[in-house]
Amino acid sequence: MADMNTYIRVSLPAVCFVWQIAMVVLFGVFIRYDEESDEKGWNEFKKSHNITSNIENDFYFRYPSFQDVHVMIFVGFGFLMTFLKRYSFGGVGFNFLIAAFGLQWALLMQGWFHALDPVTGKITIGIESLINADFCCAGSLIAYGALLGKVSPVQLMVVTLFGVTLFAVEEYIILDLFHCRDAGGAMVIHTFGGYYGLAISWVLYRPNLNLSKRLNGSVYHSDLFAMIGALFLWMFWPSFNSAITNHGAGQHRTVINTYLALASCVLTTFAISSMSQKKGKLDMVHIQNASLAAGVAMGTAAELMITPYGSIIVGFCCGIISTFGYLYVTPFLEKKLKLQDTCGIHNLHAVPGMLGGFVGAIVAATATEEIYGKEGLIETFDLTGKFENRTMSTQGGYQAAGTCVAIAFGLVGGVCVGFILRFPIWGDPADDFCFDDEAYWEVRLPYILVHFGSLSDFIFWFQLPEDEETIPPVLEYNNHMVNKHHDT
Amino acid sequence: MADMNTYIRVSLPAVCFVWQIAMVVLFGVFIRYDEESDEKGWNEFKKSHNITSNIENDFYFRYPSFQDVHVMIFVGFGFLMTFLKRYSFGGVGFNFLIAAFGLQWALLMQGWFHALDPVTGKITIGIESLINADFCCAGSLIAYGALLGKVSPVQLMVVTLFGVTLFAVEEYIILDLFHCRDAGGAMVIHTFGGYYGLAISWVLYRPNLNLSKRLNGSVYHSDLFAMIGALFLWMFWPSFNSAITNHGAGQHRTVINTYLALASCVLTTFAISSMSQKKGKLDMVHIQNASLAAGVAMGTAAELMITPYGSIIVGFCCGIISTFGYLYVTPFLEKKLKLQDTCGIHNLHAVPGMLGGFVGAIVAATATEEIYGKEGLIETFDLTGKFENRTMSTQGGYQAAGTCVAIAFGLVGGVCVGFILRFPIWGDPADDFCFDDEAYWEVRLPYILVHFGSLSDFIFWFQLPEDEETIPPVLEYNNHMVNKHHDT
Amino acid sequence: MADMNTYIRVSLPAVCFVWQIAMVVLFGVFIRYDEESDEKGWNEFKKSHNITSNIENDFYFRYPSFQDVHVMIFVGFGFLMTFLKRYSFGGVGFNFLIAAFGLQWALLMQGWFHALDPVTGKITIGIESLINADFCCAGSLIAYGALLGKVSPVQLMVVTLFGVTLFAVEEYIILDLFHCRDAGGAMVIHTFGGYYGLAISWVLYRPNLNLSKRLNGSVYHSDLFAMIGALFLWMFWPSFNSAITNHGAGQHRTVINTYLALASCVLTTFAISSMSQKKGKLDMVHIQNASLAAGVAMGTAAELMITPYGSIIVGFCCGIISTFGYLYVTPFLEKKLKLQDTCGIHNLHAVPGMLGGFVGAIVAATATEEIYGKEGLIETFDLTGKFENRTMSTQGGYQAAGTCVAIAFGLVGGVCVGFILRFPIWGDPADDFCFDDEAYWEVRLPYILVHFGSLSDFIFWFQLPEDEETIPPVLEYNNHMVNKHHDT
Repeated sequence: MADMNTYIRVSLPAVCFVWQIAMVVLFGVFIRYDEESDEKGWNEFKKSHNITSNIENDFYFRYPSFQDVHVMIFVGFGFLMTFLKRYSFGGVGFNFLIAAFGLQWALLMQGWFHALDPVTGKITIGIESLINADFCCAGSLIAYGALLGKVSPVQLMVVTLFGVTLFAVEEYIILDLFHCRDAGGAMVIHTFGGYYGLAISWVLYRPNLNLSKRLNGSVYHSDLFAMIGALFLWMFWPSFNSAITNHGAGQHRTVINTYLALASCVLTTFAISSMSQKKGKLDMVHIQNASLAAGVAMGTAAELMITPYGSIIVGFCCGIISTFGYLYVTPFLEKKLKLQDTCGIHNLHAVPGMLGGFVGAIVAATATEEIYGKEGLIETFDLTGKFENRTMSTQGGYQAAGTCVAIAFGLVGGVCVGFILRFPIWGDPADDFCFDDEAYWEVRLPYILVHFGSLSDFIFWFQLPEDEETIPPVLEYNNHMVNKHHDT
Repeated sequence: MADMNTYIRVSLPAVCFVWQIAMVVLFGVFIRYDEESDEKGWNEFKKSHNITSNIENDFYFRYPSFQDVHVMIFVGFGFLMTFLKRYSFGGVGFNFLIAAFGLQWALLMQGWFHALDPVTGKITIGIESLINADFCCAGSLIAYGALLGKVSPVQLMVVTLFGVTLFAVEEYIILDLFHCRDAGGAMVIHTFGGYYGLAISWVLYRPNLNLSKRLNGSVYHSDLFAMIGALFLWMFWPSFNSAITNHGAGQHRTVINTYLALASCVLTTFAISSMSQKKGKLDMVHIQNASLAAGVAMGTAAELMITPYGSIIVGFCCGIISTFGYLYVTPFLEKKLKLQDTCGIHNLHAVPGMLGGFVGAIVAATATEEIYGKEGLIETFDLTGKFENRTMSTQGGYQAAGTCVAIAFGLVGGVCVGFILRFPIWGDPADDFCFDDEAYWEVRLPYILVHFGSLSDFIFWFQLPEDEETIPPVLEYNNHMVNKHHDT
Repeated sequence: MADMNTYIRVSLPAVCFVWQIAMVVLFGVFIRYDEESDEKGWNEFKKSHNITSNIENDFYFRYPSFQDVHVMIFVGFGFLMTFLKRYSFGGVGFNFLIAAFGLQWALLMQGWFHALDPVTGKITIGIESLINADFCCAGSLIAYGALLGKVSPVQLMVVTLFGVTLFAVEEYIILDLFHCRDAGGAMVIHTFGGYYGLAISWVLYRPNLNLSKRLNGSVYHSDLFAMIGALFLWMFWPSFNSAITNHGAGQHRTVINTYLALASCVLTTFAISSMSQKKGKLDMVHIQNASLAAGVAMGTAAELMITPYGSIIVGFCCGIISTFGYLYVTPFLEKKLKLQDTCGIHNLHAVPGMLGGFVGAIVAATATEEIYGKEGLIETFDLTGKFENRTMSTQGGYQAAGTCVAIAFGLVGGVCVGFILRFPIWGDPADDFCFDDEAYWEVRLPYILVHFGSLSDFIFWFQLPEDEETIPPVLEYNNHMVNKHHDT
């Protein structure tokens, strides 16, 4: 019964094949190497730009950061979502699936908006495109955090298809039309992704989700797996924010700012986590998540001259705000707003992202030639062409407006996608079958055989670890159980 | 009894010491720094080549890729092999041992063939040598995949000694004599390593291996550990394929191609995995392994102008082929050909590697000056010296021939090594003691004490997690068990 | 009762907030971007140094190594310390906390000693400062290894505050006054950190620690988590030692030397580990730790012309010495010297670090112009200014003296800090509550419900995994246990 619901043997392969074949066709029509990755192109580029050394290829400026970003997307996001005791396969596995699809679709969508050659009609890609594609996926992966355990992989493919599409549009508005700076994507990635996921989850509200309550939590080992994800995100966030900033001092400064903000955030996270519990015990949920909030909040401002102590102040505040969010806001949202947010992306992405957008606006508005130098100001904010005469206060205004656009796209887009996902065709699990890998995965749980030889001849099996927090029907633990699993 | 069989207290230390002392002596006689890592040499090199900046040192072109490859060898291969429920120590631990030995022996073997200075009689090494040494180990680590759980560490040292030796010879034939391109080693690493392991395993066939059947499988947590390995392999495969390609556009393009092929492969892997099961459930074995096949298959062609959509097509096919391999070919090989392949390297390395060799041959044969430019064609295929006038169709022919050489070396070498390993002196485990870390490791499994205080005075211990899939002798679970483990 | 002891709800938040606010203030007063990360500064620097390409920014020489070092600090050290069966949260979590604090304080302390601009009174920071800050933390993280499971997080913050302070002073004496070379910190990091931790642990000796003996050990899965940490340390140690060495051949050669020494060390570690056990079985403790000792021991000499075979010999010896340490010296220290060293830092850091210092002294003393070239010798040992005329034998003498300074600072500093930590205000756990995450963390252990339906109506719960090695009071396993955990 519950099992029938999650039957995806037709829909998942169909979606994967149709979309991947579409990718083959669209890549065939549109995607080509750019001048720094094309064999002929690069030789010509070197001659025309009078470059003597291959080290000037953008590859060497960006590749180490790209690999760090790649690790964040697949191991960082993936393992952070293994924290549920019995949904670790779904956390890391579906993250893998949708990121692998999303990055291909992102190359196309971002290409059409940013890199379409008007003459040839082709999109050219290089290392920076790959970074941007990974970034674009991040938006949908964040949204997955709110939906974790409650949706089917087919629904996630839909979330990603629309998520990447919406991302490309809002990114075009914010970065191109508004000409904002947002290197680490506080606005375009985190604010958008956060509100997108929250809006979807709000539409998909399940009043009887407490039927799966026993599985909606972590267990000792799953928290350690999640810590792997959390640490790789934390360590590589400086690369995330600096991956596409300006060569030279730009990348250099972004790393320093993000590094400092993250360090500061850890201490306030530990402090609030300990304060919040009667006995002062720390909670792994806070440590894994809230300590990352500073990376999000520095997404816009990190490349600016926010100063080292400015960065530390941002981190200081984010640790507090995010941990409070996990303690009070997430339960409030669930109870009052009917919003179930499995990973608490409200506190890790939506709010810190929004804050980051406004911090960026303030730092931009207060930028002066004295601090950046005339040349530096132009380079940092790319004040060329039709933006040559934009003042810094105008820039700040546009940055703030960009944040609002990201929120709007997230909320409106999320509500629309949410309604699409409510059609009863997607194979999502019943309320009593959420947070359970059994729905979509071959699961091999450990068993134990106990023989009470000296007491009776009764032999039975039971399953480990059950992780039950409420007493389940007793029948589940006697012979019935044995047979059930042996027949499989 | 079974324990006596696996007694390696003399043989393992003897092999380690003898071979490591040999390394000290041979390194003392042969190995020196190359001109880019020698203090004096680099200063002279800079002057003679009119280089002004240290950034031109090959170190800065290669080091980030090297570190990624290093992670693939030790964490990637190592953790991918932790998937067995009770052989995780052996998976990651013996991988560590043989890679650490193999890379030293590879520096010597590859040095004698490729970097021996005819005047001084010395081998000079730099960062590219380290990458090549890691690559060379990979061949033997792949072979280990077929043997996992069935051989002793001493046997693995023998597998690696001969594996590295054979590798250096076939590499010399393929890369130097045939003048093939094979940057990511589809031929020299994966095809060779795959067939080498399969041939050894075929010779070492165990008709009664089903005595250890209960341990030949994964459990929930071990699949998560394996996923760490799988993801690091997947993420860093672009670095693997590009690590020793040409500076500039060569490395840049290789990364793009590998990245795209891998993304595409994930979707078809998920599709076939879901289709293959009655209820549409996904299997972690496929996700962990088949999604990597595209990286293997792009090993030769990734540095060529295969085009982005060409890469996606290769990935598309590999996901299908490799997953089918896990579903049908591996069971077939075991039943019909008496070939036990624990990790399914046939589907992840042997077949995709062979395909990769032929894809590379086709892409090479169709290369034109129009696509690469005159200069680019010469650089990409290194058409200098006596190969100056080689046509592209000839090059394609040699590429295909190279693939056959790799297969031949793998099969013939593997059979010979297999017979060496059949001597009854190596401490390999009995048929009922395979896939069990107890054979070679101090294992501290969790215990539980249950006291049925209110029922009787009977106290006993049992062991967790047992992970049994068949009902074991009941005696193992009462007092006997307690004593056994308490006496240790 | 035991719980009251570990009440940190006031002290931990207080320490975190006070110290983090101090960081905000001190960073505001002192810390600024350096000329390669400041927007204006870099543009001016390029002009004044006639640099045309941004690739000359130190960022591109150092950033990949920095990220590797960052991974070692947080994932490497953190996960290596998850090996205890029930203290994994504390291992990786407190490591996270104190490293995040330590690196901020290190930027200030090292800045005051090394980078204070006498005119402006400001410290300027860049990528090399971040690497040095991570290095500086490592000293305190090493010390944590000796204290693991026996101290409170508040005590660890004190250990780090003083550890970083002492580090900066000894580093100033060794690197500036003595003008030693110590790129990978064999002396300043490992020798100091090792003896610092041992001295603290000696002062904090707990005669009744065997009350917690049942939890002072690993279990199958915790050893696998620890292996993640061990491998990331092992793989990235070449980056650690080369991160701040000279550009060009310096970094290149350091990587080669460290890589070779580590490989060699693995084989002798396996050999001794197998020899030491009656049945020849390997011990994960040795594999995880002793195989890293070569990285420590190469900390000073790796950047020198120690030759490849010299590196292999160092690794060969370190594997033997360190494994013997785990087998015989650690138990001896505990029994005879009353020194409890949880992670065995004596064998992994203190002794190999000291050896590394002396190896460095010998290699420095035997350096000649013939080997390094005139220019290379001056560059390698920075023989400029008042050190222009220092002979190599004098240099060797200072290197040896530097090692002694590091030992002295570690021992004296550690004893002093140890006495501070003996005040009964820090919330450290009682002797029977050590190595237990329950003291400071919300722990969600798996439970199991057993129903003996056919025997009686008695239902009870018990906790998994118990991991007991001694028979605990029987009462813990009947109804009492159930109630205890249900009431929480």
